[in-house]
Amino acid sequence: MIKVGIIGLGTVGSSVVNILRENADVISARAGVEIVVKSGVVKNLNKDRTHLGIKISDNVDDILDDEEIDVVVELMGGVEEPFEVVKKALKNGKAVVTANKALLAYHRYELADIAKDIAFEYEASVAGGIPIINALRDGLSANHIESIMGIMNGTCNYMLTKMTNDGVAYDTILKEAQALGYAEADPTFDVGGFDTAHKLLILASIAYGIDAKPEDILIEGIENISRDDIAFAKEFGYVIKLLGIAKKDKNEVELRVHASLIKKDAMIAKIDGVMNAISVVGDKVGETLYYGAGAGGNATASAVVANIIDIARSGKSKPMLGFDKPMEGKLTLKAAGDIESKYYLRINVSDKIGVLARITKIFEENSISIEAVLQRQSCTQSANLLISTHKAYEHDIQNLISSIEKLEFVNSKPVMIRIV
Amino acid sequence: MIKVGIIGLGTVGSSVVNILRENADVISARAGVEIVVKSGVVKNLNKDRTHLGIKISDNVDDILDDEEIDVVVELMGGVEEPFEVVKKALKNGKAVVTANKALLAYHRYELADIAKDIAFEYEASVAGGIPIINALRDGLSANHIESIMGIMNGTCNYMLTKMTNDGVAYDTILKEAQALGYAEADPTFDVGGFDTAHKLLILASIAYGIDAKPEDILIEGIENISRDDIAFAKEFGYVIKLLGIAKKDKNEVELRVHASLIKKDAMIAKIDGVMNAISVVGDKVGETLYYGAGAGGNATASAVVANIIDIARSGKSKPMLGFDKPMEGKLTLKAAGDIESKYYLRINVSDKIGVLARITKIFEENSISIEAVLQRQSCTQSANLLISTHKAYEHDIQNLISSIEKLEFVNSKPVMIRIV
Ligand SMILES: NC(=O)c1ccc[n+]([C@@H]2O[C@H](COP(=O)([O-])OP(=O)(O)OC[C@H]3O[C@@H](n4cnc5c(N)ncnc54)[C@H](OP(=O)(O)O)[C@@H]3O)[C@@H](O)[C@H]2O)c1
Ligand SMILES: NC(=O)c1ccc[n+]([C@@H]2O[C@H](COP(=O)([O-])OP(=O)(O)OC[C@H]3O[C@@H](n4cnc5c(N)ncnc54)[C@H](OP(=O)(O)O)[C@@H]3O)[C@@H](O)[C@H]2O)c1
Repeated sequence: MIKVGIIGLGTVGSSVVNILRENADVISARAGVEIVVKSGVVKNLNKDRTHLGIKISDNVDDILDDEEIDVVVELMGGVEEPFEVVKKALKNGKAVVTANKALLAYHRYELADIAKDIAFEYEASVAGGIPIINALRDGLSANHIESIMGIMNGTCNYMLTKMTNDGVAYDTILKEAQALGYAEADPTFDVGGFDTAHKLLILASIAYGIDAKPEDILIEGIENISRDDIAFAKEFGYVIKLLGIAKKDKNEVELRVHASLIKKDAMIAKIDGVMNAISVVGDKVGETLYYGAGAGGNATASAVVANIIDIARSGKSKPMLGFDKPMEGKLTLKAAGDIESKYYLRINVSDKIGVLARITKIFEENSISIEAVLQRQSCTQSANLLISTHKAYEHDIQNLISSIEKLEFVNSKPVMIRIV
Repeated sequence: MIKVGIIGLGTVGSSVVNILRENADVISARAGVEIVVKSGVVKNLNKDRTHLGIKISDNVDDILDDEEIDVVVELMGGVEEPFEVVKKALKNGKAVVTANKALLAYHRYELADIAKDIAFEYEASVAGGIPIINALRDGLSANHIESIMGIMNGTCNYMLTKMTNDGVAYDTILKEAQALGYAEADPTFDVGGFDTAHKLLILASIAYGIDAKPEDILIEGIENISRDDIAFAKEFGYVIKLLGIAKKDKNEVELRVHASLIKKDAMIAKIDGVMNAISVVGDKVGETLYYGAGAGGNATASAVVANIIDIARSGKSKPMLGFDKPMEGKLTLKAAGDIESKYYLRINVSDKIGVLARITKIFEENSISIEAVLQRQSCTQSANLLISTHKAYEHDIQNLISSIEKLEFVNSKPVMIRIV
């Protein structure tokens, strides 16, 4: 029998308890042993959790120091607090399972070092119920990974889908997503791209062995996407998605999170609503894609329990981040400014003669080649210039935007969306 | 160092040799050890294979009895011959990796018994490069699997996609697929649904622990699909796909392979061309879907090599078919006749008064309720009746078809496609 202690009995933790009970038949048949929750820990003992039917305390040491417990499941959230908790669990010889992407975005390499001989699993930390860690670490292990492109935040994908299909404005759909419980009261973590960035960093470690923190990479959200952009996308056969992108370019890896214009027949463009999907291109296998629910108590707990079953079956069976030893010719992180992309810009200008000439000249000065220009009246006094470019460097486009922003006939900071 | 012997150096076998050499850097970093091909076995020693750079013989015992070899990779194809080969390999204590779906469709339970303590892996046998065995056996292990629906034959999906998008006729596109190397000279194994059935049986064992052979299940192909059917599908918002379907219904599991009408906004309906995809619904995780290349030397070898890496990492780490012991309340195979579905029928009739009345009466007599009827002139003398039904039993629909077929004004056996 495998005994589990769960720290955090919120959305995910309580679902783990329920799944281990409701699906005990199939779980013990697959694991070969019974898996039972011995106890749980929460912050607030006053909430009623009798329905969970387990012993509950508010002291993490009740689990960490319990010699009978084999597997500690960390579902409390946060960064530094759970870091201390899981370190102690590992030190006490307990296998650990977590769904905590923030913890891993900051501390995965320290944890991999400590967990050399003991299992530390985290399938649920990226894209909830989709077994993407499993696929990348085991299923595609024969490949050099060429790229990863993921829709890993259901809130953003829900909002962008609604904006595209129903023509709803950003602010309206954000309020609706909040009412439905898809978005938090402070939605920054989701719509600002940070949640996606945490997940991307985890995947990049498995694919490329690359150590980076959120602060090191390009992160933008979807806050500036307007109906004009959606309309432009539609007209030119694109859809707009918030993507986490990792891409190998010789010995460098670029990591970035941003709203992206994608050709509408790409598989990843077909993912709608709250669903998540991750496209992975391997040098031998070509493109593979993984689709499913990226959040929600049961879907996330499905991945947590799969990790517990795996530990019950085999203890530690593979290196936590996929690499047993670093590759020779290690890959390094490409500077954000050196990333190349095609771009779309929306520039709101006062409707004066000579505006287009001034602006196209600035493109030339920044060595950015224009692919197409559309001019759309936005109201009587102003117009939107919608401009798509050929490939250019990120630092050049940023310089361009700063120059354009300063022009007296430009009414607001230009909106830029990268074309993937 | 892990030493590998490969039996069969055709499309897949030679790609395995190449990947292990070309990607040796990333493979040894992930596996923690070097993996090298020691030798290979083929049928015909006269073919030039010097480019592979390995020792080659035409005697399987040169690998099976080689004490230095740790992992035997079976890529020769067939059923009984490879069965003897892998049994001997296991008896000699060697881990086995295969891509052979036919072998597994017939002998997987015998092999699982023999391979109790030794690794026997077969990721490539279903959907080539897509890590679906991995996902189903490990990633979704916490779930009762409600259903599996897979596009697992690239030839059929290529043909159906072309028929749908370009309006090409079945015979024309079959010839084209043969010219492109997507279809064999004798295409029956692919277009008749047998290849899909082999793969479905493997997945059903992992999902449900169910032992069945191809002979036990409903298998139909795409040979009867015509442009009329494609046109009907389009008109009513469906696409036609060859699906392998496994579905749990209380304590029974239905297994079937057939052309299917699927609503065009389902994820699985969006899979075009030679690509494969498998949708799996778990009771906790909901729908997940796995997409990628189902065939081809490199894509298939990607999965074979991933299995070798897994063995190098951990030896035997999980039960071959996912269950360590059978579930209590074992699931049994539902009789094909008891499967319920909605149906679409195309009935070619001589254009006479009273025909529709006679036919609808036969529907009533077989307790099959009609949802919609369309009548389409096919030439001056005859018409096609396109009829969709509400849910009905397979045995009733089969009786109905026999009755209708005998009517003097019915010109050919009615074509039936199940609506999923
Ligand atoms: N929800 C999802 O869909 C989802 C998806 C993927 C990953 N995750 C990750 O899973 C983790 C848990 O998420 P959740 O949605 O389940 O969070 P949640 O509903 O807020 O639950 C957090 C739980 O942890 C407990 N807790 C917080 N601080 C604690 C402390 N210092 N000591 C002991 N217990 C403490 C809370 O106790 P009280 O109940 O007493 O407040 C609560 O039971 C997070 O890392 C999250 O990023 C969640
Ligand atoms: N091709 C794919 O895309 C694909 C995808 C998934 C799974 N698979 C499976 O992978 C396996 C191999 O397929 P493949 O396409 O690589 O086949 P293949 O190209 O026909 O190669 C078969 C190889 O096995 C050798 N061989 C045949 N009988 C033998 C015997 N009795 N003793 C020794 N060697 C023997 C052949 O030798 P010679 O070269 O001397 O003829 C040849 O090298 C099959 O089980 C197939 O179902 C293939």
